Amino acid sequence: MKRIFLTEVLMRDGLQMEAAFVPTATKVALVDRLSALGFPRIEVTSFVSRTAVPALADAEEVFARITRRPGTIYNALAMTPRGAERAIAAGVDEIGLVVSASEAHNRANVGRDIRSSFSGFGDIAAMVRDHGPTLSGAIAMSFGCPIEGDVPEARVFSIIEDYLALGIRHIGLADTTGMGYPPQVAALCERARTRFPEAVFGLHLHDTRGLGLANVVAALEVGIERFDACIGGLGGCPFAPGASGNICTEDLVHMLGLMGYDCGVDLDALLGIRSELADAVGHALSGHVGVAGPRYRPVDCATPS
Amino acid sequence: MKRIFLTEVLMRDGLQMEAAFVPTATKVALVDRLSALGFPRIEVTSFVSRTAVPALADAEEVFARITRRPGTIYNALAMTPRGAERAIAAGVDEIGLVVSASEAHNRANVGRDIRSSFSGFGDIAAMVRDHGPTLSGAIAMSFGCPIEGDVPEARVFSIIEDYLALGIRHIGLADTTGMGYPPQVAALCERARTRFPEAVFGLHLHDTRGLGLANVVAALEVGIERFDACIGGLGGCPFAPGASGNICTEDLVHMLGLMGYDCGVDLDALLGIRSELADAVGHALSGHVGVAGPRYRPVDCATPS
Repeated sequence: MKRIFLTEVLMRDGLQMEAAFVPTATKVALVDRLSALGFPRIEVTSFVSRTAVPALADAEEVFARITRRPGTIYNALAMTPRGAERAIAAGVDEIGLVVSASEAHNRANVGRDIRSSFSGFGDIAAMVRDHGPTLSGAIAMSFGCPIEGDVPEARVFSIIEDYLALGIRHIGLADTTGMGYPPQVAALCERARTRFPEAVFGLHLHDTRGLGLANVVAALEVGIERFDACIGGLGGCPFAPGASGNICTEDLVHMLGLMGYDCGVDLDALLGIRSELADAVGHALSGHVGVAGPRYRPVDCATPS
Repeated sequence: MKRIFLTEVLMRDGLQMEAAFVPTATKVALVDRLSALGFPRIEVTSFVSRTAVPALADAEEVFARITRRPGTIYNALAMTPRGAERAIAAGVDEIGLVVSASEAHNRANVGRDIRSSFSGFGDIAAMVRDHGPTLSGAIAMSFGCPIEGDVPEARVFSIIEDYLALGIRHIGLADTTGMGYPPQVAALCERARTRFPEAVFGLHLHDTRGLGLANVVAALEVGIERFDACIGGLGGCPFAPGASGNICTEDLVHMLGLMGYDCGVDLDALLGIRSELADAVGHALSGHVGVAGPRYRPVDCATPS
């Protein structure tokens, strides 16, 4: 079975827009549950302005209290040198940098243009060079932006080049507001992989228009093996109009399992976290398999019966 | 642009499990709206036992009162010669026969085994031979059954042979409870098309486990061009445990449009019917594009920009 590398983004993208503040102790318990479930990489929080994203204002405390499972990558987002300083002090394993392929969204999100974002990223790369955490880079709005419209592929590629120039090889193409559709996702991923063989691309997809899993299938066909997802399909960007939930981890793990991929996460255990999570956020979750239950077992498609 | 042939199943599969009876006048108005929207084929109702499916007890009256748009195929289901008699008397254009690839589900659904279903279909074929409506045939549970489990491909193929022997070329493979997943759907469709080139296959997919649109993409890749869908993602089978909504027409039309397919239905007009429909059924609809709105416009994937 081919291995898929999953990142669970519940604690960051999933919670950042929730109306009710999830208590720090609950967050710590959830991260520890995610660690126990076996996710290879967990987005734990974001070191951003506490007033801009109050849901994640307890980033330091969460990091201080979680139990680190050996082998798991505990990631946190930072978009400025100040955020990276906080992340380093908190002991994150990996700092996730984010810039938007849309100038308009980048300004809305971090109050600066793409070029200024990268100038800060250069400082961060210098800060972590010797003993700091590793870095990964995400490109928000890679498949279109609700403010700017279509995003030129050349701009996405230019950002990839800028990340690579900083020594950042793990690059996430993000469909922040669910604008991607299968042939577009496949085309951009394939062209990016061909042009930048030294990079390792992952996808961060939202299911805003119901195309999340179809886009995953399209991406698998061109060799993408790394996906972000969020339990219960929570999530959205406070500075991106219309952003709604991430692709749902349970539905993704269920589909990939049927397709013969190994995500390293037990589906039943994963489904078991839903009620606890619904309690934590105070509303019903989305996702299909959590309601209908899994298909009972895969059939062998290759063998006529 | 390649044309996709859509069947809107709202009035039959969509309404058959609704708790509140939709008044006949509302049904007639909805069918007339669907006709105006340009669907080439509309499942209008089902001529089944009025006590078994009370939601569709007004089948004759609906058919008598709708306005026929030239070129549109007004289909109704019938599973027995008695139902077909009623359908013929009502003047349907096409009778949709249904048998299940699962013996257990066929018994639950129509109280007889697959063989007995086909014996009745033979009588129906004789009834319509000269001046009656055309026939199409559906195979429920083609991708698995919640009662029986996996369904042998040989049984699906045997039912296809039986339909063809009756002169029925339009055959729908139905994922009645959303058990299909992309490689399975692609494999079964491709093998069926190869083995039965004289048949015209369509897919009837449910989104029970979130895989509906991913399965459409997989089916497109092996040449399937006919899909059933339901506005608002309504639907389910009263005799199939766990059955839930059909793939959502708006989401499907939106995706196919972005992929360069022409469904012959205007998306904005289609979205315009949702509030009327939500009023008619008395609850919120499902579907993503009806909530988030469409992506603004397709990009040309083939051209780097």
